[in-house]
Parts: sequence; structure tokens; C-alpha cells
Amino acid sequence: MSNNEIINVRLCDDSTRVEILDQTALPNETKYIKLSSADELFEAIHTLRVRGAPAIGIFAAYALYVLARQIKADNFDVFKADVLKFSAYLDSSRPTAVNLSTQLRRMEKLVANSKGMAIPQILEAMRAEADKIYNEDVRMNRIISEHGLTLIKDGCGIMTQCNAGPIATSRYGTALGPILMGHERGLRLTAYICETRPLLQGARLTAYELDRAGVDSTLICDNMASIVMSRGKIDAVFAGCDRIARNGDVANKVGTSSLAILAKHYGIPFYIFGPSTTIDMSCPTGADIEIELRSPEEITELFFERQMAPPNFKCYNPAFDVTTNNLITAIITEKGIFQSGVSLEL
Amino acid sequence: MSNNEIINVRLCDDSTRVEILDQTALPNETKYIKLSSADELFEAIHTLRVRGAPAIGIFAAYALYVLARQIKADNFDVFKADVLKFSAYLDSSRPTAVNLSTQLRRMEKLVANSKGMAIPQILEAMRAEADKIYNEDVRMNRIISEHGLTLIKDGCGIMTQCNAGPIATSRYGTALGPILMGHERGLRLTAYICETRPLLQGARLTAYELDRAGVDSTLICDNMASIVMSRGKIDAVFAGCDRIARNGDVANKVGTSSLAILAKHYGIPFYIFGPSTTIDMSCPTGADIEIELRSPEEITELFFERQMAPPNFKCYNPAFDVTTNNLITAIITEKGIFQSGVSLEL
Repeated sequence: MSNNEIINVRLCDDSTRVEILDQTALPNETKYIKLSSADELFEAIHTLRVRGAPAIGIFAAYALYVLARQIKADNFDVFKADVLKFSAYLDSSRPTAVNLSTQLRRMEKLVANSKGMAIPQILEAMRAEADKIYNEDVRMNRIISEHGLTLIKDGCGIMTQCNAGPIATSRYGTALGPILMGHERGLRLTAYICETRPLLQGARLTAYELDRAGVDSTLICDNMASIVMSRGKIDAVFAGCDRIARNGDVANKVGTSSLAILAKHYGIPFYIFGPSTTIDMSCPTGADIEIELRSPEEITELFFERQMAPPNFKCYNPAFDVTTNNLITAIITEKGIFQSGVSLEL
Repeated sequence: MSNNEIINVRLCDDSTRVEILDQTALPNETKYIKLSSADELFEAIHTLRVRGAPAIGIFAAYALYVLARQIKADNFDVFKADVLKFSAYLDSSRPTAVNLSTQLRRMEKLVANSKGMAIPQILEAMRAEADKIYNEDVRMNRIISEHGLTLIKDGCGIMTQCNAGPIATSRYGTALGPILMGHERGLRLTAYICETRPLLQGARLTAYELDRAGVDSTLICDNMASIVMSRGKIDAVFAGCDRIARNGDVANKVGTSSLAILAKHYGIPFYIFGPSTTIDMSCPTGADIEIELRSPEEITELFFERQMAPPNFKCYNPAFDVTTNNLITAIITEKGIFQSGVSLEL
């Protein structure tokens, strides 16, 4: 299964560095980089070398373990304080994805509960916890993909956007999982990939994954979704999610709400895929989700190489938007398929 | 009025060449080029050095005059046959915009009706007709802009897409006309410009025009229109048009139908602007409009400089889409404001 060969985050054998597939170099170069300092690890999340909410969560857990090993402390309280400092720093690299803070809190809690243990033992437990986070994600993606497969059949056309495939997660991915798994099982599926401006995760990453897997795929610009839907080529829209509010509103890559509104207009079901850890029960509605604003150069300069708008032109560059629950046909997690309007209490 | 200084199409003083502002070099370079051969003139339309339905119509009229001057014929029938050949060649440069064929037909008809006149006289009449087409467009844009101004007021936020400003027409533009004219008259307007992939006419051309005019403007990617509308920043969406069918369906730059569907969802009025020559009474509905498909490299290669998708990845690249009449609040032409559902018979 070629798509499963993509390993995007792993701890190096000597445990001093985290190795990642540098997603900013795709699709031109399949480049792996090894990171150890706090600044390198922060930068990797901030500049999207590692991206996708689940992958960021896995990466952050390993990163915190690697940083904890660097702490020179002879007692628990100093060690714990330094871990919390590193964790807060990593947590500040991006604001919207809930997995980042969820997995860091989980690692912090493990440390807080380890009072009385020797520091080498605590480090061993942190490593085991990070491995567990990784393995849980692999398992979750398989279950999510199986659930998603029940929503489609042979011959379906599926539109997707951004990247919620193996390189955004551990394996299979969430929104891309049913397509990859269905293809492995012999279903003839066609995928329409929205390129996803400004950073083109659809064109660079999703196209790369579907190409490797051999799925029949067509790339379009984001503003072409409407004409493709209008021509009857799409049976379902699949999108990932970065944070789900208690009421079922979903924050995901900017443009997701646009696809949901178009899908509703054309009578096409619209599905959100994600692990249940993406549901933030402390967040009442989508309006309470902080939306990350990124730099204008991502829009005005084509990959920082060529100016594509007048100098210093004002831009608005939100990384995410909120899709309200009334536009979502169902949310698919490893715990099942939640129809729109059904409580997300698990 | 700085925006009026932009001269995008003009006949050179010696009448042997058409000079254009090369729109493919904007916004980095304000470059004028002079064209005289049939291949150069064809290429300028085909590669979008000159674009915008009205500007193409004006350009084609001058281009046909310049080419007619090159014909070596000693009798009317040979002259007329050669004019028709050149006209058919220019007409094949792009399929969707109706102005191109409308203005060429008008020039052909003038020639056909000139039997008995000396060829130098016919050439003089062709030049006068091309000037008339240009002057009619200037006048139409003023009237369209005045009509459009009645739809907005001080403090309005307007979303636009692609380019329907002075460089797509003669002066003021159509969809951009009310914004530029309103700004000149002291209205505080804010514009949100969708960048318009794949060729970024919004970022490169509309941003250039609004920047020169000093209008408060913000650039966004096409997939950010929904979040901007959801935050109450938009009071109206203004778009141009390339062809209007008899039933009021509109073909315009791809993504227009997406903005119309989003506007309807958010309860925002959606207006189409264009000269009445854009209405094609021979075309019953939007489904009868041929949609130009362009090369995949426009999507996969960032301005042919850097590969942004896996090699040879399949793309669908329609230049236009159709917005159905039920999504359009009104169509504004120089003949008045046509509410949705009202007959377009003029």
C-alpha cells in the first residue's frame, strides 16, 4: 500500500531529534529534516513544515519529550517547571488546532502525576505516552476511514480541499482516508482536489498523496468548485477539521464554509472527518473559536518569489473559517457518525 | 482623476499598429507594447495581454482596421474576403466573450455595406467605426457607473472579483465603475478584492487600479469570500460579465457563481454590470454558452515558473462559469437596471 509508506513524523532512534517530512518542500522534493532545538521545533509548526491537526499533536508530543531530555534539573519541581515552559512555547506556535494543546496538556498531566519518580523514568513515560498518541491516531484513522466508506460507493465523485490525508495525520488520514481505503479495496472513485490558497496544500500535498496511491484525481482552483458541482460530478464533499465546537460548528482550513454553502445549494452531502479529540467541549460555538491570521505575503507573493499585487497592499489572510452546524450533513469520528443537529456529547 | 490616466488600448498615430498596456506584466511593470501582425494581435487576446470583454471588443476593431490596411487588393471582393479571413482569425482567439464577435461582426458589416467605395475610403470608415466603438464604451461605462452608484451609499463595503475596471474596458470600467466614481465624489467605500485564480486578475489588475485611485481596499484569496461575508463586512457584490443569455443567466470569470451563491446564503445583494452589447439574444440560457477551457499549466505552474503539483497532474481549468438568473439581484447596463426575472428584451 504505497500511501502507507509516507512517514511524516517520527522520533529518531537516538531519541534526541524528531524527524519530519518537510511539507513545505512538496511536491518538488521529498525532504526529511531532523529537529532538536526548541526554536527549530516551534518553527516547524509555525511555518507549516508539519501541519494537519493530528500530525501537529503527534509532533508536539514527541517534541516535548525531546526538549524534556535537554532539561538539566536535579529535582522534580525544576524539571516540571521547565517542561511547562517548553510546552507553553510549542503551544504558542499556532492558535486554532485543538490537537496541539490537547496533546501538550496530556503530556503535562503525565509529568504532573509523576512526582516521586526519577527523572529518567518520567522521560521514559513521556516517550511511551507520545508513542501511544501516535498509535491511537493510526487506529483512529482506520476506524474513521471505515465509517467514511459506508457513505460512498463505487463510481462516486468526491470533492476535497486542503489536506487531511496521511501526511496531515499518521496513516490514511481523516477526510482522505475513505478515498484511499476505498481505492485499495477496488472502488473506482474520482477525486476533485481544490488547490487551497494561499499555501496550496491541496495541489501540493493531497495531489501528491492521491497521485502516489493511484486514485483518479483532478486538480481545480478554489473558485472552480461551483462549476464542478453544477455539472453533477460530485456525490459528496469530504473535509477535515481543526476544531469542533460543542454545538457542532467546525473550524477548518479557510474555504471549508464556502464548499459547505455550495454543497447545500447543489444538494450535495457535506461531511466533516476528524478524531473525537478535535471536539472541544469547552468551546460553545464556532463564534468562540479564535481564527489565526497569517501574514499578507502569503497572498501577495507567490511563495515569496514574485510580487503578485501592488507593493504593501493590504490583505486579510485568515487560515481558517467556521462552518456552521446547519451546513454539515454529518461529522465522522472514530466514535461514529454524528448527524447534523445531534448532540456531540460522547 | 488618476484612474482615468490608464489607457489600455489605442491606435498608434501612424495607424499601422495597436498599442496596449500589457496586462500580463502588471502589477510589477507598466509596459506598453505595439502590435501589427495578425499573429501578434491574435496572441495578445489569446494570452490575455489584453482582456476584459469590452477592451477585447475595442482592441479587435482596431486590430481588424490595422490588418485591413495590410491587404494588397485591387478590387472590393478580394479586399472583403481578406477582411473576413482576418476577422475569423481574430474571432477564434477566445470563445466566450460576446463583445469580440459582436464588434468584429459590426466591422465586417460596415465593409460589406461599402461596395462601390474606394478601398482607402473603406479603410477610413473602418477607423471611424473603431473610434466609435471606443467612444461608445467610454460613454456606456459612465452611464453604467452612474446607475451603479444608486445602489450603494457612504460607508459601504463591496466585494469584487477578477477585473472589470478601466483596464478591462475604456474608462471607469463596469463593475468597478461605481466604486471609482463614488470615491471621486467623496464616498468612503471599502473594497474587498478576490484575487481570482489562476491568473490573479483581482490581485494584479483590480488591486492596481484601486491602489492608483486611492480606494481603501483589501485583497483576499478566493476561498476567503465566505468568512469575509460572514463577518458583515460586505453590503454588495459587484461582478462584470462576459456574456448574458436571453433568460438573464450570466457567464463571467470562473468563481462568479460561487460568490453569487455565497451572497444569497448571507443575504447580500449580488449585481452584474456590463454594457447591453454583452446580452446575447441568440443565446437562450446559460447552458448554451460555450465555456473556454484553458491549459492545466495555468493551475499547476505558478506563472510558469515553479511546479506546484505533481508532474502532469490532471486539471480542469474553465475560464468562466455560469451564474443562473435566480442568484442575481439585478443586471446593470447603460440602458438601466434590470431586476432579476425581468425580461432582457431591450
